[in-house]
Amino acid sequence: MAENTAGLRGITAGETALCTVGQEGTGLTYCGYDIHDLAEHAEFEEVAYLLLYGQLPTAAELDSYRSRLQGLRQLPAALREVLERIPADAHPMDVMRTGCSMLGNLETEQDFSEQDQHIDRLLSAFPGIITYWYRYSHHGERIETDSDEASIGGHFLKLLHGKKPSDLHVKVMHASLILYAEHEFNASTFTARTCASTLSDLHSCITGAIGTLRGPLHGGANEAAMAMIENWQTPDEAEAALMGMLERKEKIMGFGHAIYRKSDPRNAIIKEWSRQLAEQVGDTRLYPVSERVEAVMQREKGLFPNADFFHASAYHFMGIPTPLFTPIFVMSRLTGWAAHIKEQRANNRIIRPSADYTGPELKAWQPIEQRG
Amino acid sequence: MAENTAGLRGITAGETALCTVGQEGTGLTYCGYDIHDLAEHAEFEEVAYLLLYGQLPTAAELDSYRSRLQGLRQLPAALREVLERIPADAHPMDVMRTGCSMLGNLETEQDFSEQDQHIDRLLSAFPGIITYWYRYSHHGERIETDSDEASIGGHFLKLLHGKKPSDLHVKVMHASLILYAEHEFNASTFTARTCASTLSDLHSCITGAIGTLRGPLHGGANEAAMAMIENWQTPDEAEAALMGMLERKEKIMGFGHAIYRKSDPRNAIIKEWSRQLAEQVGDTRLYPVSERVEAVMQREKGLFPNADFFHASAYHFMGIPTPLFTPIFVMSRLTGWAAHIKEQRANNRIIRPSADYTGPELKAWQPIEQRG
Repeated sequence: MAENTAGLRGITAGETALCTVGQEGTGLTYCGYDIHDLAEHAEFEEVAYLLLYGQLPTAAELDSYRSRLQGLRQLPAALREVLERIPADAHPMDVMRTGCSMLGNLETEQDFSEQDQHIDRLLSAFPGIITYWYRYSHHGERIETDSDEASIGGHFLKLLHGKKPSDLHVKVMHASLILYAEHEFNASTFTARTCASTLSDLHSCITGAIGTLRGPLHGGANEAAMAMIENWQTPDEAEAALMGMLERKEKIMGFGHAIYRKSDPRNAIIKEWSRQLAEQVGDTRLYPVSERVEAVMQREKGLFPNADFFHASAYHFMGIPTPLFTPIFVMSRLTGWAAHIKEQRANNRIIRPSADYTGPELKAWQPIEQRG
Repeated sequence: MAENTAGLRGITAGETALCTVGQEGTGLTYCGYDIHDLAEHAEFEEVAYLLLYGQLPTAAELDSYRSRLQGLRQLPAALREVLERIPADAHPMDVMRTGCSMLGNLETEQDFSEQDQHIDRLLSAFPGIITYWYRYSHHGERIETDSDEASIGGHFLKLLHGKKPSDLHVKVMHASLILYAEHEFNASTFTARTCASTLSDLHSCITGAIGTLRGPLHGGANEAAMAMIENWQTPDEAEAALMGMLERKEKIMGFGHAIYRKSDPRNAIIKEWSRQLAEQVGDTRLYPVSERVEAVMQREKGLFPNADFFHASAYHFMGIPTPLFTPIFVMSRLTGWAAHIKEQRANNRIIRPSADYTGPELKAWQPIEQRG
């Protein structure tokens, strides 16, 4: 196999009308809208609607969409009982994967005409799945998975902390969920499309995508960035430690990107929210440390932060435990996955590539007593 | 996108030393061994060992492998409790997917050095997962998931029927599991490899593969073939009905193949086992009906039966309920999936193809009150 086709890099695996990534080295658009416009002006539910239905909702459509989602937050008893059987030390992405898969047993997609209602249901249920498990396994509490928060991000924070989130936190969650919502044929989305291409059900596709996002080369960079920056008390300490890491050629998570060449357009947006959150909580450590890391990485390696780097401090300032960072990614990317599944189903051919064979030539059978 | 790259057909997506499919229009080899030799001479555990460790085991290695697998059949209490919460009308592939995912919470792969032990565990646990759920949900029985059957196929039949399987049935299960074990870059295997390429854990990869195999364009053709042939009482009735189906251009499941052009080498093997089983049970209906369907399809459409067609009657003769046919495929293909995951991990690059963009040009932002 030619080296440059490994990982299908640069190989066209299908068509999409949903997203462009990295045009002119930095752009990101969803359904033709620039990510800066979406993150500045829209709520996450507007962007979800855009991805899933192909156009921005009117005020009436958005209202009705939000109410529909709000009505779908209760988890079935059998699902709650399953979540109670997952230990506190489980990987939170395994909890998301299992919660999604279990829901597929209880509310199976029988026909593709039902797809939108199942997508709505998953959008509404995911915050409850992860927080129900988290608070039960860590604190022995059986929480209600309903809330009167209008937004998915606000609902998640309410369930996690048991109190109404501030307006600033709700705004940050909107922006964050918008930034992570969609990213063309990344590995988890491509998994969802491959699964969809056999005409499997929605829960199978999303379950597979969650498992793929779980991999450290895909999701999880924001958790790794947090684990790194929380070690450092001051920007100078951070710089010294980082220089050592670079010298030892250690991997610095949250920098550079496979597709963007010049910059990740999501960085400046989440960085500004992280700055505002830092100001609000009176942080004098994590944000300055993060800024210094950014400057050193630019100076030493010419590398820019990707979407994940300032997400670490932003989530931390909102009191979100680090292991729940990637499950938030799931709550967001679910919209992109689902939009791609709908697109794949609308114009399907089973995804079945070829392989270059590198194994042995045909061998004669060896009876077991002649082996060894 | 050029039409002929849709579904990545004919596009090389990586290398494998595990399998060749369709060489000279009909061949199938695992690690260099012809499928005829494997199905005639080997036990399934020998083939699993071959795929997972790259060579046929010696007698001592096979003994020790079988004992290891036999020792891993008990399901954890939390997993049994989850299976008890899955309703009787769930899709059995959703049960497999959820059982695998749940086990990943309880016995998480922490490091790739553990991969072989988790593969062994899944090989041993899958027959128990599906039969525990099946017998609990359908008959209210909580079965032991241990047995003294030496083989995975025999173990499955023992758990399903609650009695020791005949020697003939054990032999047929060996052959059947060998025939389904591996098939290069089919959609479910490619899902497993894409998931593995993010360096995700084994349970995520296998869970995703199960969800992909669930699709009616991939697994499930043997169930569909069964649903068709059981309608017919005689070969003549079958022929008349089939001619009508062909005239109405209905899809006949279990015939033709995307890769094989001349014949599916697995067909003759499972057909002969189906014939022996028919003789043993005194069948005078399903086997003659199946033979007639084969002859008519050849005569009318020039199409040959694939691996699935005679599997339908063979499984039926062994008293296996039709909805459990595809879960058996999982028990078998797990070996191929796992071998591909190991291969992907050993020489990894994240699988991240490109897409042709067919969506709108960049659009200006529209405030919500101006939409509609």
